[in-house]
Amino acid sequence: MAEKRVYFFGKGKAEGKAEMKHLLGGKGANLAEMTNLGVPVPPGFTIATSVCQEYESNKGKWPAGLNKEVDENIAKLEKAMGQKFGDNKNPLLVSVRSGAAVSMPGMMDTVLNLGLNDKAVEGLIEKTGNPKFVYDIYRRFIDMFADVVMGCSHSNFEKAIHAAKEKAGVENDNQLSAEQLQDVVEKYKAIYKKHVGSAFPQDPKKQLVNAVNAVFGSWESERAIKYRKLNKIESLLGTAVNVQAMAFGNMGEDSGTGVCFTRNPSTGKKEFYGEYLINAQGEDVVAGIRTPQPLKSLNKAMPNLYKELTALMTKLEKHYKDMQDIEFTIQEGELFVLQTRNGKRTAAAAIKIAVDMLKERLINNREAVHRVTANQLDTLLHPSFDTNAKRDVVAKGLPASPGAAVGQVVFDAEAAEKWEAQGKKTVLVRTETSPEDIGGMAAAEGILTVRGGMTSHAAVVARGMGKCCVAGCSDISINEKTKKFSVAGKTFKEGDWVSLDGSNGQLMAGAVPTVEPKMSGDFRKFMTICDKVRKIKVRTNADTPEDAEKAVGFGAEGIGLCRTEHMFFEGKRVWYVRQAILEADNYAEMKKEMEEAETKTEQQKIKSKYSETKKNFESALRRLASYQKKDFEGIFKAMAGKPVTVRLLDPPLHEFLPHDKATQSEMAKRLGVSLKKVKEQVEKLNEFNPMLGHRGCRLAVTYPEFYRMQAKAIIEAAIAASTPKKKVVPEIMIPLVGHVEELKIVKEEIVDEIKQVLKSHDTKLTYKIGTMIEVPRAALTADEIAAEADFFSFGTNDLTQMALGFSRDDVAKFTAKYIEYGIYKDDPFQVLDQSGVGKLIETGVKLGREQKKTLKVGICGEHGGEPNTIEFCADQGMNYVSCSPYRVPIARLSAAQAASK
Amino acid sequence: MAEKRVYFFGKGKAEGKAEMKHLLGGKGANLAEMTNLGVPVPPGFTIATSVCQEYESNKGKWPAGLNKEVDENIAKLEKAMGQKFGDNKNPLLVSVRSGAAVSMPGMMDTVLNLGLNDKAVEGLIEKTGNPKFVYDIYRRFIDMFADVVMGCSHSNFEKAIHAAKEKAGVENDNQLSAEQLQDVVEKYKAIYKKHVGSAFPQDPKKQLVNAVNAVFGSWESERAIKYRKLNKIESLLGTAVNVQAMAFGNMGEDSGTGVCFTRNPSTGKKEFYGEYLINAQGEDVVAGIRTPQPLKSLNKAMPNLYKELTALMTKLEKHYKDMQDIEFTIQEGELFVLQTRNGKRTAAAAIKIAVDMLKERLINNREAVHRVTANQLDTLLHPSFDTNAKRDVVAKGLPASPGAAVGQVVFDAEAAEKWEAQGKKTVLVRTETSPEDIGGMAAAEGILTVRGGMTSHAAVVARGMGKCCVAGCSDISINEKTKKFSVAGKTFKEGDWVSLDGSNGQLMAGAVPTVEPKMSGDFRKFMTICDKVRKIKVRTNADTPEDAEKAVGFGAEGIGLCRTEHMFFEGKRVWYVRQAILEADNYAEMKKEMEEAETKTEQQKIKSKYSETKKNFESALRRLASYQKKDFEGIFKAMAGKPVTVRLLDPPLHEFLPHDKATQSEMAKRLGVSLKKVKEQVEKLNEFNPMLGHRGCRLAVTYPEFYRMQAKAIIEAAIAASTPKKKVVPEIMIPLVGHVEELKIVKEEIVDEIKQVLKSHDTKLTYKIGTMIEVPRAALTADEIAAEADFFSFGTNDLTQMALGFSRDDVAKFTAKYIEYGIYKDDPFQVLDQSGVGKLIETGVKLGREQKKTLKVGICGEHGGEPNTIEFCADQGMNYVSCSPYRVPIARLSAAQAASK
Repeated sequence: MAEKRVYFFGKGKAEGKAEMKHLLGGKGANLAEMTNLGVPVPPGFTIATSVCQEYESNKGKWPAGLNKEVDENIAKLEKAMGQKFGDNKNPLLVSVRSGAAVSMPGMMDTVLNLGLNDKAVEGLIEKTGNPKFVYDIYRRFIDMFADVVMGCSHSNFEKAIHAAKEKAGVENDNQLSAEQLQDVVEKYKAIYKKHVGSAFPQDPKKQLVNAVNAVFGSWESERAIKYRKLNKIESLLGTAVNVQAMAFGNMGEDSGTGVCFTRNPSTGKKEFYGEYLINAQGEDVVAGIRTPQPLKSLNKAMPNLYKELTALMTKLEKHYKDMQDIEFTIQEGELFVLQTRNGKRTAAAAIKIAVDMLKERLINNREAVHRVTANQLDTLLHPSFDTNAKRDVVAKGLPASPGAAVGQVVFDAEAAEKWEAQGKKTVLVRTETSPEDIGGMAAAEGILTVRGGMTSHAAVVARGMGKCCVAGCSDISINEKTKKFSVAGKTFKEGDWVSLDGSNGQLMAGAVPTVEPKMSGDFRKFMTICDKVRKIKVRTNADTPEDAEKAVGFGAEGIGLCRTEHMFFEGKRVWYVRQAILEADNYAEMKKEMEEAETKTEQQKIKSKYSETKKNFESALRRLASYQKKDFEGIFKAMAGKPVTVRLLDPPLHEFLPHDKATQSEMAKRLGVSLKKVKEQVEKLNEFNPMLGHRGCRLAVTYPEFYRMQAKAIIEAAIAASTPKKKVVPEIMIPLVGHVEELKIVKEEIVDEIKQVLKSHDTKLTYKIGTMIEVPRAALTADEIAAEADFFSFGTNDLTQMALGFSRDDVAKFTAKYIEYGIYKDDPFQVLDQSGVGKLIETGVKLGREQKKTLKVGICGEHGGEPNTIEFCADQGMNYVSCSPYRVPIARLSAAQAASK
Repeated sequence: MAEKRVYFFGKGKAEGKAEMKHLLGGKGANLAEMTNLGVPVPPGFTIATSVCQEYESNKGKWPAGLNKEVDENIAKLEKAMGQKFGDNKNPLLVSVRSGAAVSMPGMMDTVLNLGLNDKAVEGLIEKTGNPKFVYDIYRRFIDMFADVVMGCSHSNFEKAIHAAKEKAGVENDNQLSAEQLQDVVEKYKAIYKKHVGSAFPQDPKKQLVNAVNAVFGSWESERAIKYRKLNKIESLLGTAVNVQAMAFGNMGEDSGTGVCFTRNPSTGKKEFYGEYLINAQGEDVVAGIRTPQPLKSLNKAMPNLYKELTALMTKLEKHYKDMQDIEFTIQEGELFVLQTRNGKRTAAAAIKIAVDMLKERLINNREAVHRVTANQLDTLLHPSFDTNAKRDVVAKGLPASPGAAVGQVVFDAEAAEKWEAQGKKTVLVRTETSPEDIGGMAAAEGILTVRGGMTSHAAVVARGMGKCCVAGCSDISINEKTKKFSVAGKTFKEGDWVSLDGSNGQLMAGAVPTVEPKMSGDFRKFMTICDKVRKIKVRTNADTPEDAEKAVGFGAEGIGLCRTEHMFFEGKRVWYVRQAILEADNYAEMKKEMEEAETKTEQQKIKSKYSETKKNFESALRRLASYQKKDFEGIFKAMAGKPVTVRLLDPPLHEFLPHDKATQSEMAKRLGVSLKKVKEQVEKLNEFNPMLGHRGCRLAVTYPEFYRMQAKAIIEAAIAASTPKKKVVPEIMIPLVGHVEELKIVKEEIVDEIKQVLKSHDTKLTYKIGTMIEVPRAALTADEIAAEADFFSFGTNDLTQMALGFSRDDVAKFTAKYIEYGIYKDDPFQVLDQSGVGKLIETGVKLGREQKKTLKVGICGEHGGEPNTIEFCADQGMNYVSCSPYRVPIARLSAAQAASK
């Protein structure tokens, strides 16, 4: 039997079902599901996504057999509706819509009122007695068909309707009379013929075939590809095509169309929410051309219908166990549901809905954590406007997507993308947005539109992106040519700073200061749910007591990476660092000479010079140690007994030396050496590939004194910060180990120092010594290394650099092309390269745990806050991930999602 | 039963045997073996190597039970010899010698004539009636015991014997009378007491215990550790101690001592070879203090004894199946063999002996290939003096170890090591060498000694190292203080250039020019044996037709790595390279602008600029292509159909740009651009870590034109170089692949170019496209990459850099310490780090072959000529190794050794 390609739905029964989403697309599966549920869905049929793929590989031809199946379904549909395609009594009109397995709002082309032709127009007039409506939908259909299916731009028709309105002396389309519209139809046909090169097709089947092909073709359109890429949507077969009998919302004052949500998508509040337009088709709402009315006013206008709709909303939410986004049409007082889907929502709404639905027992913990995305959470962790700051509000629009956006004005998507690449923050200002603007919307800090409502393209997409958006700000007028907009007597040009408040719709002049985000009660509740579900711990990367405190506030369970070198640069201490570096070499040389001196006399000769060098070196180190001790003490106290992993000095020493002449001179003066000496030292420490040079534990092999100093500071700080109840157990981490012998040698020095410190303090202290796994060789020989280490921490930044041979400072020259060509799907420094670097981690964890079952393993590279990486780390059985303070909540969420997948 | 620690041998029967080498040491096992063979070995006993370890871990104390076992064996020895320790009638005298499982000539301390005391002296005089001999060995014993066992330097005694000789008016020690020597003994005892702090011990057992401990202690002496490190000797338990009854070579004119070889260790000729001294003890020969007589003269002096000795030599060589180095002593006309071992030999001798013994059917092919070391072969591949060069011969010594050394004079080992570290070539000039000089000898190009014969320390060690040595060059006189030596009226100071010919013993003033080595007939025969035994192929790294021809002469079976960038620097072409680099960026920008131009008008506007850039870029590339074509053609012809792997452009582009102002100005002038533009380009291409930057295939992703140009040149050269009988099958190698997608994209470009070339030439050609595996990620994902590659070539230089995180240009700052501390045993850029980098190779080969069974796999890093690495590659089942032309024979040998291990 041949494969089934077309699935019928209607009259309470559908051939498809919800589980067939991959084949029927989200919309098709939903229509089937709703039909089966008894929801009043206009009947129709779905051409499967697999056909899109066949069409592609067939080079734009229909596979054999499809035509027959389509014809059979048209017949079925005609029967169900009691109508006929192109009939001059009761013609069948259909909508043709795309619908892939993953929702892509606005990305796919849609054709409405298909089936209209000169004969059907007659039939429809006869049936409805409403020639104005019929000519109106006919002219709309010609326009849309030309634009979407034949590639003849909508703007070609704009002039004609504009002229007609001018001639009639009216402002809105719906003020035109039937005759005037009939005239417009004729003009449209002429325009069509002129631009397309052939007459407007009168055969409804031919219209359908062309429309179906247009849907298929749009799957490979640039904007669709871009959207999939931006949203990392892959492995789909293609889009399905939904052909469905039309329901008319524009058949008069007892008709209408709308969009509704079962809960408020902006706040998450449990309320019926939405908007509708009387006497309009669906795209009028979505495109934001007319500003619609709020849903609750429908209760007054059509109370019965409102009751029916809200009952359906409740039914659908309960069925789908998630907030629903429902499109409906009222045709002459009769309700039709066109589609329902899980509604997009703001981050705050997502959290409230998850927490509420859990309370309502609609979902459980494991489901709840999947109701908020990491990106959504991220927006909540971004700053909002300082309430004390002065706001120069120049206009107000709809609060379409919350957030605080501060940026420079740009007027097109391209500029937004270009400026972002240059590191500039922008606010994208548009009359209305279209799918072509997706890239620019992603690049901008916020979006401001003149037209469109809360469910306009701009609003929906911005909410999906977690991006601030103010829509329908009709007070402003844009001049795209001069790249200016004016409002309230003020003019803003490209590059001017503005601020947008997505929570109240305000547009402000200038850059308004922002403040740190505050966590709402629901946020805390939601995070607690995440903590219940997740298995892997979340630590933070923090180098100061302030960061440590902030991270604890965000729920960090310890510090996974405390970098000590940042402390080296603070204030005066950099001079001691520089002195120590100068003396380190002198001392190393003198030490060697002393060791090699064969007789006591020889030793005596150099002894005074040796002692002086030693004294200088040690005194510089001692000063650093006292600074470091204070730093560590502050951090230990902030963490109050939570584990703290301190990484010993990592960067090459030349990073601490000045490279400009002025500072070199200052250094010479301060340290009492010649400028020549300073320059020589800078020159001597210079490296061709500092990334692979004399750094990390390699420094400690040649100059053990630095690590000894740090170990001393850590232990003394731990002693000072310990209380009888909360003992500090410092975790000392040795970076850049590639060979177990390095670790052994360095560890021996540190342990020796620690013993001395504990002895001199006459006390005991538990401490751990572990290592970063960031050199590929370390991962490959992790069994040997684990024998000497209390813990492993994967340093995925360096591990990525070495495993891929990518210098993070240099790859910008080619990574754009690499991602464009899809060599790497994501920047491997942002999203862990699981198939390459991941293998090293896998090997490292496996070998390490084989050697030492209790080995504590974590990750402290910047990937530690990236959701996919967190899932990977959890799968590897790591004990914790560590990330920047702001990413801690995201890590907690991602860990929970990973644990409940 | 307690572990046996002491093993007796004597009277034709031994408790040990040859197989117990690990426990008895080489010498002990040999003594047991010889005893069992019926060789006249003085009886004695061996304290096992394991005891040395017990002694070490016991902190210098004898393990319980050892004392008893030693006493029992002394009793046994006394019984066998009919003598008694310290007896005043017939005292037992013994030698105490070290002997580890691996031969370490001169490294361990030896004590002779132990057992002598005031009473034994009386007994020995009574027994021998030779007081002069007895007092002589007594004073020698005191000296040696003090020096070796008690750490009281030999030089303390030198003055006393010197004074005695002066007082007696004689020149040599043996001219002193018994009374004078008796007087010397008393003086020596006084010196001993003064320096050691106690009287010379009279108890033979106490002497023995101290001597045994000194041997054990010497195992951990600095020089012993250094030797083991230099020779990579590990995992030994320690040294055994051989206590053996003395045989006296200094009992008069019918006594003597000597060293003999069963074949000539210098030439390999099958002849009895050696030297001896009449009336002397063994150390006189080895230390080179007196210059000995050739062995054949013994045939005249003592014909029967010569006959007995040569018969024994024949027997021993047949037994051990290798050339033997035998120490013997004649005591009053009776022959004693003190030891036999496989003799050290020159490289030429090693080859001749292997080839001869194979011919004699003493050994087979698989054994023969192990009779020559890679280092020995290496010496044969080094240059010798140009026979046409003028030689300013200033002196002649013994041709102790062949070779041609040209270097600057240094007078101590330390200087030799220091100068070598600075890249200088030295000739080490010493009165005589001692074990402390090992490091300096290894560092010097050649060694010149004033005293000592063909078996002196300098000669033996130099031959072992394959280092040129001229010994016993007594014409020269050294002033170590002023660091000068004079000869024939000339004075040479430190730093002066001299040349040494180790084949004829000539010392020449100045740096004499050298010529390339020529392969002897035996060399060729030996290499043929290697080729029969080995399994892995040997290719070469060659960038020019000359190198290619040389390598084929050395037996290369193809080119494994032809680097194209070296060609870029030659002559004028570097200017075209620079032009291409300048234009590449211009072109890429214009191309992008053209692509992004939305209308034809916009395109028209920039078209002329675009065309010009394109023309400039392409013309520079075309010129390069024509040069490259010629290069490749030459190489293909030189290889006459043997496989040639050409690596496409690898280094970052900035390597081709000038960094000094003068050349930058020249570049600006030549290319008709501003200096500013040149500087900007240099700045733009500058990288922080060029090793991990924009290079290799990454260049081809952004600028595909370079690789297309190279592919075109390769294919056109292959067409031109192919003959009807020998088709060239070029192997195009893409460097720095880390992700299969890179390979796919770059390969597609190349294949497209090749198709065009073949089409325009209307011909067909087989070619292969493969990749370097040099990025860790490539090894980890080798299965994916293999799907796209015809071959893999492991680039172990970069793989080592990335796997270890070592920048080869920067690690010098710490690698010395790393090797000193034993973190890495060898420089990982010389000897492949098998336990780290090796794992990546293992994974790469395994995954690659799993994906593609027929995948050709080789190695082309510099490790490809290193013996251990070759064995590793063979074990991994690689198809070939590739190395520099001079290393090709070594690779053939190492491959054979690997195949027959």
